[in-house]
Amino acid sequence: MARLVVIGGGAAGMSAASAARRVDPGLEVVVCEAGGFAAYGMCGIPYYLGGIVPEAEDLVAYPPSTFREKRGIDLRLRTRVTAIDPGARQVRLAAGTGAAEDQESLTYDALVVTSGADPVRPPVPGLDEPHVFTIRSLDEAIGLRRLLASGTIRRAVVVGAGYIGLEAAEALVCAGVAVDVVEALPGVLGTVDEPIAALAQAELERHTRLWLGARLEAVDKGSTPAGSLTAVVDGGEIPADLVVIAVGVRPATDLLIQAGAGHLPDGSVVVDAGMRTSLPDVFAAGDAVALPHLVLGRPAWVPLGPAANKTGRVAGTVAAGGTAAFRGVVGTAVVKVFDLEVARTGLGLADAQAAGLDAVATDEVSRSRAKYYPGGSPLHVRLVHTRDGRLLGGQIAGREGAAKRVDVLATALHAGFTVDDVAALDLSYAPPFAPVYDPVLAAAIKAARGLAALTAGGSP
Amino acid sequence: MARLVVIGGGAAGMSAASAARRVDPGLEVVVCEAGGFAAYGMCGIPYYLGGIVPEAEDLVAYPPSTFREKRGIDLRLRTRVTAIDPGARQVRLAAGTGAAEDQESLTYDALVVTSGADPVRPPVPGLDEPHVFTIRSLDEAIGLRRLLASGTIRRAVVVGAGYIGLEAAEALVCAGVAVDVVEALPGVLGTVDEPIAALAQAELERHTRLWLGARLEAVDKGSTPAGSLTAVVDGGEIPADLVVIAVGVRPATDLLIQAGAGHLPDGSVVVDAGMRTSLPDVFAAGDAVALPHLVLGRPAWVPLGPAANKTGRVAGTVAAGGTAAFRGVVGTAVVKVFDLEVARTGLGLADAQAAGLDAVATDEVSRSRAKYYPGGSPLHVRLVHTRDGRLLGGQIAGREGAAKRVDVLATALHAGFTVDDVAALDLSYAPPFAPVYDPVLAAAIKAARGLAALTAGGSP
Repeated sequence: MARLVVIGGGAAGMSAASAARRVDPGLEVVVCEAGGFAAYGMCGIPYYLGGIVPEAEDLVAYPPSTFREKRGIDLRLRTRVTAIDPGARQVRLAAGTGAAEDQESLTYDALVVTSGADPVRPPVPGLDEPHVFTIRSLDEAIGLRRLLASGTIRRAVVVGAGYIGLEAAEALVCAGVAVDVVEALPGVLGTVDEPIAALAQAELERHTRLWLGARLEAVDKGSTPAGSLTAVVDGGEIPADLVVIAVGVRPATDLLIQAGAGHLPDGSVVVDAGMRTSLPDVFAAGDAVALPHLVLGRPAWVPLGPAANKTGRVAGTVAAGGTAAFRGVVGTAVVKVFDLEVARTGLGLADAQAAGLDAVATDEVSRSRAKYYPGGSPLHVRLVHTRDGRLLGGQIAGREGAAKRVDVLATALHAGFTVDDVAALDLSYAPPFAPVYDPVLAAAIKAARGLAALTAGGSP
Repeated sequence: MARLVVIGGGAAGMSAASAARRVDPGLEVVVCEAGGFAAYGMCGIPYYLGGIVPEAEDLVAYPPSTFREKRGIDLRLRTRVTAIDPGARQVRLAAGTGAAEDQESLTYDALVVTSGADPVRPPVPGLDEPHVFTIRSLDEAIGLRRLLASGTIRRAVVVGAGYIGLEAAEALVCAGVAVDVVEALPGVLGTVDEPIAALAQAELERHTRLWLGARLEAVDKGSTPAGSLTAVVDGGEIPADLVVIAVGVRPATDLLIQAGAGHLPDGSVVVDAGMRTSLPDVFAAGDAVALPHLVLGRPAWVPLGPAANKTGRVAGTVAAGGTAAFRGVVGTAVVKVFDLEVARTGLGLADAQAAGLDAVATDEVSRSRAKYYPGGSPLHVRLVHTRDGRLLGGQIAGREGAAKRVDVLATALHAGFTVDDVAALDLSYAPPFAPVYDPVLAAAIKAARGLAALTAGGSP
């Protein structure tokens, strides 16, 4: 019987295993997961930490028994792969990691690698102190939540103000902890442009103490009674009982690269539409791979949950002999920053200009509901587009209605729409849900008018 | 000086007048509005009746003084036009309606007709009783709200369970009135398919008493102490202090048709992309006109607020010598039915089949947020598509997140997408806002799989 081995039991890995099983019920499917949990929603970890999600098990989409018994998938937890040998079609397993029958290696007919991304650890001393965490696995989150529940954590420093840092900060505030956020860059949330980031920053500052342009230099054992640790930054020293490192992630592709798989300079592995790597019968999916960016027109590394699920499904389908293709991403993401929704898709202005596009941005603030209908709030919409009108990206921030409105712009990016096309969209209207000109339309109309004025008055 | 006359001071008319003023600051712009208010949000009337919007003036986007003083628009309230004479380029005014200088007619160089739609009055006796209302103008709504505030209205009958009927029922319940809803058809909300309408019906039944398949036969003076009126329906007699007639609207195009304007059999007036009617220098916009339906591929009468605003703007721009075009609609609409959002776009299954399309529907229920995140609720998504996968329409109902998700489907219709294209969309994800497979994606994936199975297993 042919054997499919899947490395990684996260969203991509379990999607791959399940898809492969559907395509070929006779295939032996083995999943090697280094941690103690599989098929859990990694994006839910901050909400588990904050106590909004009561139990770690709530994040698990399906228990291991579902995979083992109902789907016939040989799911091996605490089983770490240490090497891939594409010549021998084998993966080597770490000694004593609980692999079935103490196997030291597993042969495969097809291999799907979903090794994900690892948190970046800044090269500073003190990160091995016991109360220093990254938030990348449920195992680690369980330890952190236990610590929070102990009542000994009163002050925390979150290093990094990207998606994960902001969500971690919110979670800790939810858990009753006073939080300092330390960010080396001059602003928060580098994935959105300045006017949108400024809104996120203001919201963050309502709930935490924010240190911008402050680089972490060390984590020391605490010297003051206020905290058991001290985060040393170039602007000062911050006493803390807990330090969370959230300065970003990088592709966890050492195994693939050591085995010879083609990759981008950032370490993300290159795949085709069927998620095939450059190695024979080796597929990759999830946060480890570069994906076609439909606006940039080239592969880019944009590690986000929906694509992890979808690419896992494609890899498993194709690895098992079925047909599937992943078309690409436009870089859509949303983050809840306390009471603010911040959503983005496509290219930011700087991204677009860096890509050599003649890009401009149009900003428009309108309301989430008809102005006379109670409960509405301002929505800041930024459209990034070329000077001849092609939509390149969009960003929306506000207290309600940003997340799903950015999906209209994402869909417009998939369609290759201009701002005129967006302005002509027939979007839903009723006073409780939108003004008669939806904020997306209002921004597109403004952008289209600006370009028309440019054409009418400008030199060629 | 050339003169533009606009008939109607609603959304379309005031959009036309303002757009014309922007294009040609030297143009004389006269707006004749039969009622006492201009530029108000007609869709807000139910919320004013229910007390959610405190004052009638809150619905007025700009006061008359803004148009008169800031925009130089000669806005004439309580000025009714009784005829259009396209040969003489004149409109005739009703005697003594407050027209400036008691003019009996006005000549025009260009005319924009935004006469809207009138409520249909069923041909039954008793509709002239004092407590029988339609809800189509703010003047009438002010009278009704005054009546509600008098404390004498304890029971109401709403005749018709379309958008306006459902919104009126909600408003009256909000105002503390016990409501019976009477609908001649076997179900509510004929603009959505049965599974979606059933959800609206269940929600309506939680708050009102619903009579389906019950045709209004008469409104009698009350014979019981329970109400001052009796609504006689074929299933019984319903005592009431108030009857609201909301059985639909029809194009208010008598003036245009008498003047010879081309129109569809339903009375909606035919226009080109610049909103020109078949009469020289006569434009029309708003709820009176048929618009290109981009899914049907022919003009259709779909009277909704956003298109009224947009077509008014186009008509005014072109009438004043500028350039603009209206591309068309896909029939997107949303209604709040108590705690339920019901949204639709494109064609329903029956519409599609009636149009000769080989259409099928796919239904999928998923959640509005990640399943472990609190506050989510089920979303029922129905996709209507051809057997070869072209998206024709979509309908979504749920307690949150239906309205703006249908906009993704509306955008997909504008783009001419297939269900495969929709399944490949990169939509936003974070646990508070969506599951990792957004309900729209989940439905599209199910539809695409169903079609693939059909192709794989079916005969040609």
